[in-house]
Amino acid sequence: MNEDARLDLGRRQRLGMVEAVWGEHKSAEQITAVMLGLRQAGELALVTRVSAEKAAAVERLLADQLGSGGADPPQHHPLARCLTWPPPPPADPAFGRVAVLSGGSSDLAVASEARLALACHGVASDLVLDVGVAGLHRLLAELEGLRRARVLIACAGMEGALPTVLAGLLPQPVIGVPVAVGYGVSAGGQAALMGMLASCAPGLTVVNIENGYGAAMAALRILQLANGVASAAREQGP
Amino acid sequence: MNEDARLDLGRRQRLGMVEAVWGEHKSAEQITAVMLGLRQAGELALVTRVSAEKAAAVERLLADQLGSGGADPPQHHPLARCLTWPPPPPADPAFGRVAVLSGGSSDLAVASEARLALACHGVASDLVLDVGVAGLHRLLAELEGLRRARVLIACAGMEGALPTVLAGLLPQPVIGVPVAVGYGVSAGGQAALMGMLASCAPGLTVVNIENGYGAAMAALRILQLANGVASAAREQGP
Amino acid sequence: MNEDARLDLGRRQRLGMVEAVWGEHKSAEQITAVMLGLRQAGELALVTRVSAEKAAAVERLLADQLGSGGADPPQHHPLARCLTWPPPPPADPAFGRVAVLSGGSSDLAVASEARLALACHGVASDLVLDVGVAGLHRLLAELEGLRRARVLIACAGMEGALPTVLAGLLPQPVIGVPVAVGYGVSAGGQAALMGMLASCAPGLTVVNIENGYGAAMAALRILQLANGVASAAREQGP
Amino acid sequence: MNEDARLDLGRRQRLGMVEAVWGEHKSAEQITAVMLGLRQAGELALVTRVSAEKAAAVERLLADQLGSGGADPPQHHPLARCLTWPPPPPADPAFGRVAVLSGGSSDLAVASEARLALACHGVASDLVLDVGVAGLHRLLAELEGLRRARVLIACAGMEGALPTVLAGLLPQPVIGVPVAVGYGVSAGGQAALMGMLASCAPGLTVVNIENGYGAAMAALRILQLANGVASAAREQGP
Amino acid sequence: MNEDARLDLGRRQRLGMVEAVWGEHKSAEQITAVMLGLRQAGELALVTRVSAEKAAAVERLLADQLGSGGADPPQHHPLARCLTWPPPPPADPAFGRVAVLSGGSSDLAVASEARLALACHGVASDLVLDVGVAGLHRLLAELEGLRRARVLIACAGMEGALPTVLAGLLPQPVIGVPVAVGYGVSAGGQAALMGMLASCAPGLTVVNIENGYGAAMAALRILQLANGVASAAREQGP
Amino acid sequence: MNEDARLDLGRRQRLGMVEAVWGEHKSAEQITAVMLGLRQAGELALVTRVSAEKAAAVERLLADQLGSGGADPPQHHPLARCLTWPPPPPADPAFGRVAVLSGGSSDLAVASEARLALACHGVASDLVLDVGVAGLHRLLAELEGLRRARVLIACAGMEGALPTVLAGLLPQPVIGVPVAVGYGVSAGGQAALMGMLASCAPGLTVVNIENGYGAAMAALRILQLANGVASAAREQGP
Amino acid sequence: MNEDARLDLGRRQRLGMVEAVWGEHKSAEQITAVMLGLRQAGELALVTRVSAEKAAAVERLLADQLGSGGADPPQHHPLARCLTWPPPPPADPAFGRVAVLSGGSSDLAVASEARLALACHGVASDLVLDVGVAGLHRLLAELEGLRRARVLIACAGMEGALPTVLAGLLPQPVIGVPVAVGYGVSAGGQAALMGMLASCAPGLTVVNIENGYGAAMAALRILQLANGVASAAREQGP
Amino acid sequence: MNEDARLDLGRRQRLGMVEAVWGEHKSAEQITAVMLGLRQAGELALVTRVSAEKAAAVERLLADQLGSGGADPPQHHPLARCLTWPPPPPADPAFGRVAVLSGGSSDLAVASEARLALACHGVASDLVLDVGVAGLHRLLAELEGLRRARVLIACAGMEGALPTVLAGLLPQPVIGVPVAVGYGVSAGGQAALMGMLASCAPGLTVVNIENGYGAAMAALRILQLANGVASAAREQGP
Repeated sequence: MNEDARLDLGRRQRLGMVEAVWGEHKSAEQITAVMLGLRQAGELALVTRVSAEKAAAVERLLADQLGSGGADPPQHHPLARCLTWPPPPPADPAFGRVAVLSGGSSDLAVASEARLALACHGVASDLVLDVGVAGLHRLLAELEGLRRARVLIACAGMEGALPTVLAGLLPQPVIGVPVAVGYGVSAGGQAALMGMLASCAPGLTVVNIENGYGAAMAALRILQLANGVASAAREQGP
Repeated sequence: MNEDARLDLGRRQRLGMVEAVWGEHKSAEQITAVMLGLRQAGELALVTRVSAEKAAAVERLLADQLGSGGADPPQHHPLARCLTWPPPPPADPAFGRVAVLSGGSSDLAVASEARLALACHGVASDLVLDVGVAGLHRLLAELEGLRRARVLIACAGMEGALPTVLAGLLPQPVIGVPVAVGYGVSAGGQAALMGMLASCAPGLTVVNIENGYGAAMAALRILQLANGVASAAREQGP
Repeated sequence: MNEDARLDLGRRQRLGMVEAVWGEHKSAEQITAVMLGLRQAGELALVTRVSAEKAAAVERLLADQLGSGGADPPQHHPLARCLTWPPPPPADPAFGRVAVLSGGSSDLAVASEARLALACHGVASDLVLDVGVAGLHRLLAELEGLRRARVLIACAGMEGALPTVLAGLLPQPVIGVPVAVGYGVSAGGQAALMGMLASCAPGLTVVNIENGYGAAMAALRILQLANGVASAAREQGP
Repeated sequence: MNEDARLDLGRRQRLGMVEAVWGEHKSAEQITAVMLGLRQAGELALVTRVSAEKAAAVERLLADQLGSGGADPPQHHPLARCLTWPPPPPADPAFGRVAVLSGGSSDLAVASEARLALACHGVASDLVLDVGVAGLHRLLAELEGLRRARVLIACAGMEGALPTVLAGLLPQPVIGVPVAVGYGVSAGGQAALMGMLASCAPGLTVVNIENGYGAAMAALRILQLANGVASAAREQGP
Repeated sequence: MNEDARLDLGRRQRLGMVEAVWGEHKSAEQITAVMLGLRQAGELALVTRVSAEKAAAVERLLADQLGSGGADPPQHHPLARCLTWPPPPPADPAFGRVAVLSGGSSDLAVASEARLALACHGVASDLVLDVGVAGLHRLLAELEGLRRARVLIACAGMEGALPTVLAGLLPQPVIGVPVAVGYGVSAGGQAALMGMLASCAPGLTVVNIENGYGAAMAALRILQLANGVASAAREQGP
Repeated sequence: MNEDARLDLGRRQRLGMVEAVWGEHKSAEQITAVMLGLRQAGELALVTRVSAEKAAAVERLLADQLGSGGADPPQHHPLARCLTWPPPPPADPAFGRVAVLSGGSSDLAVASEARLALACHGVASDLVLDVGVAGLHRLLAELEGLRRARVLIACAGMEGALPTVLAGLLPQPVIGVPVAVGYGVSAGGQAALMGMLASCAPGLTVVNIENGYGAAMAALRILQLANGVASAAREQGP
Repeated sequence: MNEDARLDLGRRQRLGMVEAVWGEHKSAEQITAVMLGLRQAGELALVTRVSAEKAAAVERLLADQLGSGGADPPQHHPLARCLTWPPPPPADPAFGRVAVLSGGSSDLAVASEARLALACHGVASDLVLDVGVAGLHRLLAELEGLRRARVLIACAGMEGALPTVLAGLLPQPVIGVPVAVGYGVSAGGQAALMGMLASCAPGLTVVNIENGYGAAMAALRILQLANGVASAAREQGP
Repeated sequence: MNEDARLDLGRRQRLGMVEAVWGEHKSAEQITAVMLGLRQAGELALVTRVSAEKAAAVERLLADQLGSGGADPPQHHPLARCLTWPPPPPADPAFGRVAVLSGGSSDLAVASEARLALACHGVASDLVLDVGVAGLHRLLAELEGLRRARVLIACAGMEGALPTVLAGLLPQPVIGVPVAVGYGVSAGGQAALMGMLASCAPGLTVVNIENGYGAAMAALRILQLANGVASAAREQGP
């Protein structure tokens, strides 16, 4: 038996996705080792839930290992709390755009993680902030713009009603991301999660609380399918 | 010490409310005894959570006791699952009107209990059905009419987002009543309750799951206050 | 204000979906009225969670109203516990096929509801039964066939690990439906729901416990998007 | 689509309320930006859940932006953990007074948030401390004074019985605010919340745990209604 | 190893208590066998949670076994849902009296079980009904009588505040029994249980939901101690 | 209305108890003020949940107010995390002794709080450590000694089985105190609480998690009763 | 893709176990089909959670299919609520014996399911009834006999302390099975499950609530290992 | 009664295990005292949940007590967060080997605690890292090696599906250890625990969240049994 850590390097081939590394419970040393492994395998590294302090430690460790001549340090994204290395690829226009909506600026970390995970796979996205349902006119004013998005990712804390209202108004795939913002019964995102699952809007799907990365990968699965169907259609001609 | 049941006959004097009797865990015999006690004290009896079968049994027991010459049998309200005796008083126009909204016809029992409890205190109400947030245009179309209501009671199951949207659009007191309609995470009304408590709309208050009677009494407290302030104002003159 | 029930007849136009009616808490009379309303509006009626007894009562009520000359009674689907009227449209090949997987035959009701809801929108589906993860070879044997499905809907009770394993093996959109089958900690589907939300597989999305209809509508949103992208691509040419 | 934060500046017009900003998950920079935006729009800023450290940082940032000649710094209210800017308006006697009750001095933060939120809308309030139900005589001694309040806001941790006892004694609107004080089963305010929702007192309504601001806005909705009814009555004459 | 059922016949000697049998999950045959075993050992049988139907079946089975000449059938107590055999002993005045309080007549089954379990050990009790805290005057009116009770057992559903108020007013041992009466958050007695545990009243103890038997045994432990201390004191003289 | 804090100084007269002050959510200033108030009223002050740091701050504040000539500083009990002032009275032999048992040395803080609260009321107690049920012989070896205790207070974390085993072996009043020691399902004391409430041992009562003070007051209520019965018996003579 | 049900016929080869069928959510027709399939494959059928009514229906359906000449009907085990077909094999002495303990006769169904599942694999077992921890002497009296068992399966409802005490006294593998017997906090077996997981006894393992079959299979895994090690040892000689 | 701490020194004789000390809630002083006591009794000390800081403090305290000439300091295992003293014994080949599997490197602490606890009893183990079910090929690649292990301990966070898949593939005893790694619904290990208990794989047993020590002791009970059966078999001859 093999006691070494092993990377799931076949993930891109099987699923079309890079392997994201969940950084929260890992030490800077562990993260550095994984990033070097991915780099050696020619893969983009995306490490989520990395604080600024841990990111700095990783950068130092990498610099120690690679020498200061290395022109290409990893990038820390403070809002998204993520490390990427090397930089994400340019956006692929074939994917169209994803809209990432958020009820308030407290949801920004989750929305940013989703957007960064999309960017790591070449998917462009737009952020639509402060469209909580307690002031409905703000959402209604964005409706026309939102019609152009291929997939809608709606982040919401508190009672989590934004994805429900959205999925009642627009026909695209809508992915709800509960956010752990709030106090009392909404602390930890539980009320938002339950509200999204219990939603009376048809066809809303949900991911785990604050799982911005997961929502992005669900959108990617959809966009890969749409592109696949489209290339088949293009080949077939009109 | 006194082992007999005792009615809270001072409730009307203290609170301006009749004592409602919760019928669910009481036998027809117990309900009959309480109704006779209230009748003797000159009080209107409102018994909630009474099935059609139990209501019929109570009617038989009362007929046995009072003789068939009694021209005034109690009334069972099947939608609201309540018994009243004697009939509620006429509506007092000084109270204005209360709007009772409901997301779907599955919430009708709770909405009806609230309306009947209001009627027992002389408060008129209007029912606004099928205004769930998954089809927002239906609620928006009622907005002008709703502006004329003094208090809004919003009943909702599933994710319970209706009171949140409502309280973001209108300035009146809004009382949310979670309804135990739904399945999975919304079974028992838990998701709706959490959604209403976690609401991002300012000044929404909530009562227990399916507590239509309680919502009505909260509205009554508000209307009694408003009338009291108004009569003081009228006396003071302009 | 209007106290009548109102149907969300704009749903097809807004979302491309028929309005499904949740039959569990509605009486046969209420269901009959809604079905007649949808019929008048030229819409297909899909009523979920209808027992055989309630379905028979609805059929009798409709026959009373329409006369026995009506050649077109509603259809009850006992496995899916649904009523439809008129029959669902023929499958539209542009949608491709959806695979509906189930861990065991106890999940059949939920899987059947999902398949019927897809059929009501012209989407063909295949059922893949008995592929629970405690006997992994059964799932692995189906893998090649599953590659041809556009969307995967995975129903599972107990610990709910099927969608996780599936989403680690295949790149399509995967929608997990927790099933309320099991006892002890899995009673009510809670363990399956938590397992799917907590999944370590990237891009798995989840709907409420036993919400077969919701999973179908999520698949429909995806397929409509893919078709739309495809027709744009076809117009553009290669 | 517009990625900038947007304030709900129509809230005063729609609801008669200023937009309160929930400061807990926002940085000093984000709070400063919002406060400047509200100031520019001529609105009073009320920011809740702001620690003394964060408040000082906001003050420094505002001073940097406005210059030290600005004679009007924001005010931090340490007990209520809130920032206001500019000072709240003078109390409007037409609103009458609200009584804010608290079971013990551990509830003071929540009670103070409620009182400050009322003050920001020109509503005067009285604080009635240490009237927990384990020493009932203290509450009974205040009963006469409490009759003069228009609305009662009752804050309580532990078992949360204070609003129940209060609503059984007095006829005014009573709003219960569970407080996250206690240990074991009352940690986080869960027992108090459940106790208030389960209350046997008729017409008690509840807001989320520690939502002093929400209770104040519910009281404001009631007082605005009462004043509106009163001015209509005054115009009508006796 | 011995596969036969075995009774805990030493319980009276160890604890001064008869062994109560929990009848809910036992068949009439199982209950009959246990009762015969206790009878043979000269012990009083107390079987709790026995419906009228099951009690009748037990009586038939016992009559079959003992012949109709047996002059001493078991007694079913319908309110308490218990069987006893032979009749409980006369009350022992040395124990003094226990007061069993109940918030409403829906709590009667639990209160009756407690009283019967006390009677089986020779302890007299008084029932004080309808003293819920929403109408506090009813409890205050009983206060003088309650001072004469040695132990107070307070049964309450809903928010369960009765034992808290009681333990703040009186110095005796107070045992709270949550009752599974109520709906929504109080369904199953959970809110009452949490309220009693979280109580701010000093020295209130609690038993499991609806455990009337357990509350009685706790009272018995106290009374046995008091009597033991008293006989020691009497022996010692003044 | 009176906005000042008010002490429940009648508690000793009503209940025979000093008012304990829960120090966890109070500042050193607030605690100091309360202690001075109690001192002025001639009452012993018992403040629970006070860290060493906060205790030192209170001592400094008191020294500032009273001058350094004050020969009688408050006493901090680090194991029990409590402050007392002045020292507890000598033990009153009429109360007999209470045994405080604990499953492991991690329960020591709770056991010590209970013992100190007893001491503040003149009740002597013995500590019986390390008698957890996983090594049953240790408890069985103490059984004879335990028979001499008047009341048994059993503190236990983890699965909380100690009070159950104890109450099956000994006839005295047994009060279970769940302790928040453990991890996973026993974190926060929830498993211990549920285990004690669900106990199959007759007459075990329970207090809130870690409520050592409450268990002591429950024991005091029992001992006061026993002493009262005893003095009545002594007066009556043999 | 194959829509037919498929049996996991390789389970015996992979795991040494027959496939048990969970009968609770299956119709008599579904169970009959599965049993015939297993019979055709030469496998013993074990169907759990089958009521007497459903068992009779299965027997009728099998008789219809096989003709009345079939000399070998399936056997229903009413206490264990299981069907087997054909009869279980004779016990294999190489396995030694398993002891199945139960706190009270209410746990008999679960204990019987475990014993039957063992018997289906040739493992003999002994039932040790009524050894709940509230009367510890009964368990202590069995200790010597229990030393001869190879594996201990301990079924317990209420607070579930039996496996904890057992695992502190004996060195064998102990498997705890929580039973859904009890009321209030122990309803559904939740308290027993938590108590066993939180146990302070080293090396106690747990299965799902009422999963008698699972406990038996865990014991079988252990016994197969022991036998395998033993045959290796025997081959090796002394 | 004896107030001193007492060690369960009979544990090795009764159960064949050393007494592990749970260090989390103990001070360095308490741990030092216990370790000295065990040393005096000739027992190996294993203290779990000890941070590096606390371990250093214990080492200093021991050095103070024993003098610096003591050649044998305790050993801190940082990954396993444990202290041992003296070093564990050499592995006993009669036990064979245990495989400890882990879904990801975040589970390493728990897996290491299990391995160290095995080592303290002379049991050798192998670590199999990074075999989570989202990349199934990694687990399948290890299958042959895993067949040689006598017992499988599977640690998993998130949805906890690893032990389920494992127990469906391999016949040995499988012990699942939920790990408190994850966020949202998997925070604290709750989802993993529920998933393992609800598992559809036959004969999987579970221990408390993060209870690596408990899983090791369960494996030890099994291995001791197998060795015992084997020596009996060897004595018996072939």
